[in-house]
Amino acid sequence: MAVPFRTTRRVDFADTDMAGMVHFSNFFRYMEAAEVAFLRSKGLSVAALPWEGHTLSFPRVAASCDYIKPARFEEVLDIAVRIHKIGRKSVTYAFEFFRADELIARGQISAVCCRVGTDKHIESVEIPPAIRERLEHV
Amino acid sequence: MAVPFRTTRRVDFADTDMAGMVHFSNFFRYMEAAEVAFLRSKGLSVAALPWEGHTLSFPRVAASCDYIKPARFEEVLDIAVRIHKIGRKSVTYAFEFFRADELIARGQISAVCCRVGTDKHIESVEIPPAIRERLEHV
Amino acid sequence: MAVPFRTTRRVDFADTDMAGMVHFSNFFRYMEAAEVAFLRSKGLSVAALPWEGHTLSFPRVAASCDYIKPARFEEVLDIAVRIHKIGRKSVTYAFEFFRADELIARGQISAVCCRVGTDKHIESVEIPPAIRERLEHV
Amino acid sequence: MAVPFRTTRRVDFADTDMAGMVHFSNFFRYMEAAEVAFLRSKGLSVAALPWEGHTLSFPRVAASCDYIKPARFEEVLDIAVRIHKIGRKSVTYAFEFFRADELIARGQISAVCCRVGTDKHIESVEIPPAIRERLEHV
Repeated sequence: MAVPFRTTRRVDFADTDMAGMVHFSNFFRYMEAAEVAFLRSKGLSVAALPWEGHTLSFPRVAASCDYIKPARFEEVLDIAVRIHKIGRKSVTYAFEFFRADELIARGQISAVCCRVGTDKHIESVEIPPAIRERLEHV
Repeated sequence: MAVPFRTTRRVDFADTDMAGMVHFSNFFRYMEAAEVAFLRSKGLSVAALPWEGHTLSFPRVAASCDYIKPARFEEVLDIAVRIHKIGRKSVTYAFEFFRADELIARGQISAVCCRVGTDKHIESVEIPPAIRERLEHV
Repeated sequence: MAVPFRTTRRVDFADTDMAGMVHFSNFFRYMEAAEVAFLRSKGLSVAALPWEGHTLSFPRVAASCDYIKPARFEEVLDIAVRIHKIGRKSVTYAFEFFRADELIARGQISAVCCRVGTDKHIESVEIPPAIRERLEHV
Repeated sequence: MAVPFRTTRRVDFADTDMAGMVHFSNFFRYMEAAEVAFLRSKGLSVAALPWEGHTLSFPRVAASCDYIKPARFEEVLDIAVRIHKIGRKSVTYAFEFFRADELIARGQISAVCCRVGTDKHIESVEIPPAIRERLEHV
């Protein structure tokens, strides 16, 4: 299996809640930032891409996270990103969060390749081969 | 099956992202606010509760969401909250988001009943019968 | 002086930080939501408005807040909104936050009326008389 | 005048709003993260510090920001942090945001040194000389 892409994230004070740990919703922000760093490393972007006269976008259709240990202010989390699955029109990323070598959370985000019309109408389309190739290339 | 608890949430401008829709991570904040309203309607709180000389808290162990349609600025979303499952130590809430009568998203949050020690050490414990009763009571 | 517009906001768990109070940045989100409610009460919107073939938007040029007392989870804050000043091209809102009758914070947001071009270029313009009239009308 | 401390921040997708730019409230989160990096570079922390048997904390009493140009997704902002003023009990930080060499925003945060009692009562106190010295030391 492919070696995952790795990035880091330092926990902001504003990311914590009154329980003294990172609010669970912020793990989804961290996942997306890690996805963006992963795509950037492949010359891609989660933002709308011009593609053969259209604009492509990858709206999220599902997201989930399992929380194992709390993360706390100022900690630097290691985030591993892998492509869990690429379908004809969709891609699912898998994320693992580590503090030092301890796994503290694990999550997934699924996104669908969409063509955005001039009227902001969005329609799912097949992932263009050139993008698929970059995603699959380790 | 029990009639779900219902609450509403208006989408803030700050909840949107550059794709012009509610950022997917904010659905988890909306779910938690709906859970809090549900618990409040039963005289309970998601924040640390004093309980027989200890403090109880319900840290999240899992959260997930499926996105069906985008939600947009200033829309008022209807959120239905149900208890999906109560175990010995944990509870899972199920949420449905509606815009008018259209289902736009569906999610779950699982939390574990924990006793918080004076040293902030947390340990999972059985849900006290009096709390369980209020949760189960429609 | 005009009677201010009033709205309320309940503090979400996710709005708190590890100091056990609302994170200071969230008062700016609360102010904006109060501004939006104020504008909605006048038939206006902070989002881009179609206006004589153009799109109008009100990007923020300044924001400030003074914090007097902390706000805490589940509290319902009363927010008073007034127009502090309307210039030729800009408007400044003043906000006061109350818990019961106690003033806990006070802030301002200044926004500039801008025309958004098709290329997303934005240019400040005079506030159209019909919008100014609605803003000034108590 | 002292050379300011400098740090960087990459704009997350979740930090943007439907106007396609960083939501104005997020500049306050960026400022705080820059303050934390500044304090960390001096061996200090914005979180509660143990100090001679008490806990010290620096709640915010004022925050402001002037917005000059919008910041956008994936941009890396340069943030300069300076101590604008240290009083007997309070400290004011000044921040400047740059994209390449262009100044895009400017802000301030004022915090007061407080002693946190066991009952969570907070009381303002003089900044201890050893902390003051580290803050003032370039």
